[in-house]
This record gives sequence, C-alpha cells and structure tokens, in this order.
Amino acid sequence: MRILGIDPGLHLTGYGIVDAGKRGVTLIEAGVIRTDVRAALPDRLHELYAGLADVLADGRPSAIALEDVFANPGFPRTAIVMGHVCGVIGLSAAQARVPVETIPPAAVKRAIVASGRAGKRQVQRMVRVLLDLADEPSAHVADALALALVAASRRGAAFNGTARVRGSA
Amino acid sequence: MRILGIDPGLHLTGYGIVDAGKRGVTLIEAGVIRTDVRAALPDRLHELYAGLADVLADGRPSAIALEDVFANPGFPRTAIVMGHVCGVIGLSAAQARVPVETIPPAAVKRAIVASGRAGKRQVQRMVRVLLDLADEPSAHVADALALALVAASRRGAAFNGTARVRGSA
Repeated sequence: MRILGIDPGLHLTGYGIVDAGKRGVTLIEAGVIRTDVRAALPDRLHELYAGLADVLADGRPSAIALEDVFANPGFPRTAIVMGHVCGVIGLSAAQARVPVETIPPAAVKRAIVASGRAGKRQVQRMVRVLLDLADEPSAHVADALALALVAASRRGAAFNGTARVRGSA
Repeated sequence: MRILGIDPGLHLTGYGIVDAGKRGVTLIEAGVIRTDVRAALPDRLHELYAGLADVLADGRPSAIALEDVFANPGFPRTAIVMGHVCGVIGLSAAQARVPVETIPPAAVKRAIVASGRAGKRQVQRMVRVLLDLADEPSAHVADALALALVAASRRGAAFNGTARVRGSA
C-alpha cells in the first residue's frame, strides 16, 4: 500500500510517499509544497490545496499520515495557523477519499529514534537508513517520511534498511 | 455591492448576504451550514466546503466579512478547530476570487450594539432593527449578518432601519 506522510506548515509543507509491501518499504516520491510568504492567507491556502491535489493525483496514496497538531498546539496564533493548514489538508484528503491518520510528533520520534525528544537531525539520519537513501532528506521531507514510515510499521510493514521502526511487526 | 458575512463554526456556520447600495442595506439571504457531528473531521470540512460553494455560487458576493478567530483564540483545541474551519472558508474565498476582511467579535459588537461585551440577544435585536426584519434571526445568522453590516458600514452604506451602525458614514 502507498502511504503519504505530511508535515504541515503554512510556508513549507513536507510530503513523502512510501510503498509498503511484503518485500519492504520503498520511497516513491517526496518534496515540499511552498506558498508565497507575500501572498494573503486565503491565496496561500489555495496554493497549498493546488499542490496537494497534484501530490494526491500523481501519488495515489491509500492512506495519509498527518502530524497531529492537537498534540502540541503551541502559541494560540501558531495553533490557529496550523489549524488553517490542516483544515485544507483534511479537506483535500476527504475529496480524494483517502483516510487520514493523525500521529503526535513525540510518537513519531519514539518510533523512529527511540526518544520522544529526538532532534531533527536524528530523524533525518534514521529516515535515510530506514529507506536506504543515498542522501539525508531535508528536515520537512524527513518528518513527512517518518510519519509515513510509522503508519507503514503500524500496518506491519517490513523494512529494507539496517534499522527497524520500533513497535513494528 | 453584496457582502457575505460568515460566523465560523465546525457544527454550525452562520452566513448572511446583504446588498449595500445608496438606497440602504437589504437582506438577500441568510442561513446556516451544518456538518454531521458523527462524521470524521475531514468529511465535515468537505460538507462545509460544499455548503460554502453553494452560498458563493448563488449569492455572488463581492466581499466576505469573516469573524477574526485570531482575536479571541480561546482554548488551544478550540483555536485549532476554528483554524480548520477558517482554513476551508479562506480557501473557498480564494477559489471564488472574493476578498476576505476579518473583523474581531468585539469590534462587531461595538459597532452594532455600542458595547464590545454585548450579549448574543442584543446583537440579534439590533440586526433585526438595522435590516428591518419581521423576526429576530437565530444567533449564528445574526452574528453573520452583523459582520456583513459592519463591513457595509465601513464602505459607507446607509441603513434603512431606525438605528445606525456606529462609525458608519
């Protein structure tokens, strides 16, 4: 099955699609959706929506793993902005008829690095190992791929890399 | 010009369209968009998106007045949910190419009832007077119409009712 991981953000939304099968988990595609910092909020939301539509149409995932923004809401202003972004992501998922699983950031770090307080670099390194990538992905892409990997491991996927996701089958 | 006021909410989103011209401000249409409380969040966001699409297509507003959710964010969880709702509203506005003006609730109450701490009933009564309605609108519809009235008054609209919006031309 194909799982799309999404690290939400108004400026940069990281995404990563993995294919999880009996022979392992492999990277299909990953990248970031950028919005114009000079544009008005509604126009930025539309840029995100259009970018997501492309990712969903090209990648055809059967599940989406999204960072749970309710877990660490942060400052009220940040929480509301993240809410706007996740509202557009949720809408896009519903329109594409792909179910969304939300995963708290600490649960991702615990599963990938064995510590809920792991740094971004540790997540980047582990994602590289788990997916057997030539290079370390950028922070936003690594977070998105980590979400997809955790969702894959919850579904019993095996991994090609030298390490394994904690709690996997 | 036609102004669409929107009182955002996940369960009930109030909307009200007024026509503001030299001969006064008149009600065009108002109501609520409901979402199924038993449905998943992404599906509820899609219900809201579909409802807004109908309102925008039928009403053809040239401006949207939306409650500013950044003004009183409330509890983090509430703030994030309102963010989801306003993200879908902002996206819908951008796709319909209608500019969005956000107005803090206290500013609406000050303009309509002369007190930033006015109760819902006072807003309902004043909206009825200002638009010369036969009946008092429900709370969500009144809040939406109040937003539209304030946006109309900021654009110099005159009112038919016996009262006037404070700060109007």
